[in-house]
Amino acid sequence: MTRKVNNNMDLVEQLDRIFHPRAIAVIGASANPDKVGTMCLRNLLKAGFGGKIYPVNPNLSELFGLRAYPSVSAIPGVIDLAIIVIPAQLTTPTIEECAAKGVKGAILITGGFKEVGTEIGSALQDKIRDIANRNGMKIIGPNTLGFINPGANLNATFQPTVNSSKVGNVALAAQSGGICIFIIHALNNHNMGISKATGMGNRCNLDFDEVVTYFAKDEATKVIVLYIEGLEQPQRLMNVARQVVKRKPIVVYKSGRDETINRAALSHTGTLAGKYEFYKAAFTQAGMIAVDDMTELIDVTKALAFQPPSSGNRVAIITTQAGAGIIAADKCRDLDLRPAEFSPATKQRLRQLVSPLTPIDNPVDIAWQATDFDACREILRVTMEDDGVDIITVITVYAPMIMEMMRAVIDISPSCKKPITVCLDSPNGAASAGINALEERSIPTYPFPERAITGLAGLARYGKILKIIG
Amino acid sequence: MTRKVNNNMDLVEQLDRIFHPRAIAVIGASANPDKVGTMCLRNLLKAGFGGKIYPVNPNLSELFGLRAYPSVSAIPGVIDLAIIVIPAQLTTPTIEECAAKGVKGAILITGGFKEVGTEIGSALQDKIRDIANRNGMKIIGPNTLGFINPGANLNATFQPTVNSSKVGNVALAAQSGGICIFIIHALNNHNMGISKATGMGNRCNLDFDEVVTYFAKDEATKVIVLYIEGLEQPQRLMNVARQVVKRKPIVVYKSGRDETINRAALSHTGTLAGKYEFYKAAFTQAGMIAVDDMTELIDVTKALAFQPPSSGNRVAIITTQAGAGIIAADKCRDLDLRPAEFSPATKQRLRQLVSPLTPIDNPVDIAWQATDFDACREILRVTMEDDGVDIITVITVYAPMIMEMMRAVIDISPSCKKPITVCLDSPNGAASAGINALEERSIPTYPFPERAITGLAGLARYGKILKIIG
Repeated sequence: MTRKVNNNMDLVEQLDRIFHPRAIAVIGASANPDKVGTMCLRNLLKAGFGGKIYPVNPNLSELFGLRAYPSVSAIPGVIDLAIIVIPAQLTTPTIEECAAKGVKGAILITGGFKEVGTEIGSALQDKIRDIANRNGMKIIGPNTLGFINPGANLNATFQPTVNSSKVGNVALAAQSGGICIFIIHALNNHNMGISKATGMGNRCNLDFDEVVTYFAKDEATKVIVLYIEGLEQPQRLMNVARQVVKRKPIVVYKSGRDETINRAALSHTGTLAGKYEFYKAAFTQAGMIAVDDMTELIDVTKALAFQPPSSGNRVAIITTQAGAGIIAADKCRDLDLRPAEFSPATKQRLRQLVSPLTPIDNPVDIAWQATDFDACREILRVTMEDDGVDIITVITVYAPMIMEMMRAVIDISPSCKKPITVCLDSPNGAASAGINALEERSIPTYPFPERAITGLAGLARYGKILKIIG
Repeated sequence: MTRKVNNNMDLVEQLDRIFHPRAIAVIGASANPDKVGTMCLRNLLKAGFGGKIYPVNPNLSELFGLRAYPSVSAIPGVIDLAIIVIPAQLTTPTIEECAAKGVKGAILITGGFKEVGTEIGSALQDKIRDIANRNGMKIIGPNTLGFINPGANLNATFQPTVNSSKVGNVALAAQSGGICIFIIHALNNHNMGISKATGMGNRCNLDFDEVVTYFAKDEATKVIVLYIEGLEQPQRLMNVARQVVKRKPIVVYKSGRDETINRAALSHTGTLAGKYEFYKAAFTQAGMIAVDDMTELIDVTKALAFQPPSSGNRVAIITTQAGAGIIAADKCRDLDLRPAEFSPATKQRLRQLVSPLTPIDNPVDIAWQATDFDACREILRVTMEDDGVDIITVITVYAPMIMEMMRAVIDISPSCKKPITVCLDSPNGAASAGINALEERSIPTYPFPERAITGLAGLARYGKILKIIG
């Protein structure tokens, strides 16, 4: 898993140096604020990166208060990362120069390589790949976004909205830069933070299997998320994933299911997408969790980022609305979960706690008891301690008085060894403080019953993967 | 469709009187703030209902500054609506009294009828149904939430969070009160307003087919949304729906797919849920749009509430990110839409407008042109005017500069005869003003590409229904 590269660093060390650079050169920044290179430089400054930043531009002596250099070789001291935004046809000497300087990695944002579908583009990509390979340098891209490492205040992309991404435990590698940004935004909007997130682009000499190898070793990362359009050598990723999932879950979203759209994928990042069903089967066999859309990606990732895996698929559903319980049970059926059968002792105790008119068979409809902290806490305790229950979800529509039930969830969660998700909606933001309080205690919260069950299903899927592969 | 009821009003007139009452009696309100009846009374006051409100309680002469009456018969003047929250065993004389008073409709919030599964409960429900039927009175429930009519500042439920629901064109009838509230919250959170929303409960003498008949005639309603657990006489709803969908779309979410959960549905609103596949086929045959979860319900309803139906399924996808275009095309395939084939003239014009490196075959990747208002406007115009295009989606991840593209969408939308949806996410709320600006112009906006396509698919499904049934 840790192939040696030319300069005697192993791959993980090298990628760690690239993702935590001491010094960054920006090649192609200018005084023109509309230039992509300039945007990258500004993002480095605005995000508050603490290392050295060197603009490279032969026509400038200074840019944004930083000394500019005519070339990479003119920069004193080491450069760990180069961000390159110059026309494709000018990249070869620049990559040569970076390699000579001992740069560990380059983000090549520029497009115009294999993805344009011309012989010239392909040849150019092969050429820079060969230079990089010969010199033990890694190129992220070409035709990519760059990456962020929010824990290091580092935004090495042209996208300003990720300057202040939340820091967290989700690592992301996305073939498409646009989707990388979509997912970063969505993770942040759902109270999840990022350890590292990178675009992959044409992957000329840095591919998913290598990034996954690094994320597996990265201490800041708990969950790995991949967005893939197509792979030249899928088996390499599958082999790595099968090892990595023993320690960290991998959530994968594969696009390019529409065969007629393969030409778009080809012209996007230079790879034919391939047949979706083949990929999905291979992902599953390798122990990855394949998801079918962005909503599922977010819901599953959130559960995995916040909670431990589940040892089984028997769900206790505790709700204040019978209707929500029915919807949740439906979704359990769809996702290979099943409502737990409570023990006679549990049933007896629940019957004492819950109104005689409402059902205590799973789903437990606690109805108006939701306003009683002590009753809620006891209902939760009894349910959680039932040996027939692997995993719990608490589902309610928001009302001010229902927050007693959420206080009970928070109160009991430290003593609960079983994974839990919550559904609590937030009309006009009314529950946002409550949702934040739950999520600060690592209890993932969802706006709809089905989505809370999707989260549970992610925990059960990863638990099953650990049993089979781990 | 407009059965005569006993008092010579037709059903639609009677329901319109119930949903727009001149005077409301609240039977079961007291000084105890934890009583459900008291919550109902407070909601009537807090939501600002402009008609008369009469608390009924034999032990009080006054409540919240209102004169209280010992009985319904003691109230001077007409009562259009009674909200009843008293123990089930006491309801018979109260229903009798309401009928004698000429009350048009009663919301019977109380549970303890058919849903508890006892002979006593069933007999009691039959009894009140017979009284209501004999006297031409309608009972909403029993075992229900009540309804809201935000346009009349009317919250005739015990739920305080819907006091200030947005006013709009979506009518909702939900078998479960909890799900009714979930959907109201979610519609509001997604910038949709409510014309009327009602819980249905046990439906002792007011069923879905009747409410749908009323919503069809209600001028404030453009889209009808139903949440159904089970029906005793599904054919009645199907017959009505087949007529109604010629004028208004009906979106239906059916729960109770898990057979093992049917007992929960039974104990919830007194009806066995029945086989889901049967229902889904029947809904589709009747021209209703069946959805499989709350997210799809919201996405489809939003498109239908904001946009006209589509005359076909050929989609133009305009995006700033190739990856998002690929995801969108995948989702089109899943939902019976297909990427439009542009005419040679369109392709030629797009080639002039879009960067030579990015694809102009559908999806159109406009990439950096998104910052150029005039270019965006022209790209949109050319695409919209292509005869091979039925329906359009514009997809982008948020960045400040991308808002030029959204300005172009807003600028061109009045002259566009084809339905449109937009995907624009909002990192940390950054795009919320932009999203509001789009939605004020009736352009429905979604946070993920797949969801914008789900919206389009709803418009195409309704267009197809109109062709087949209309």
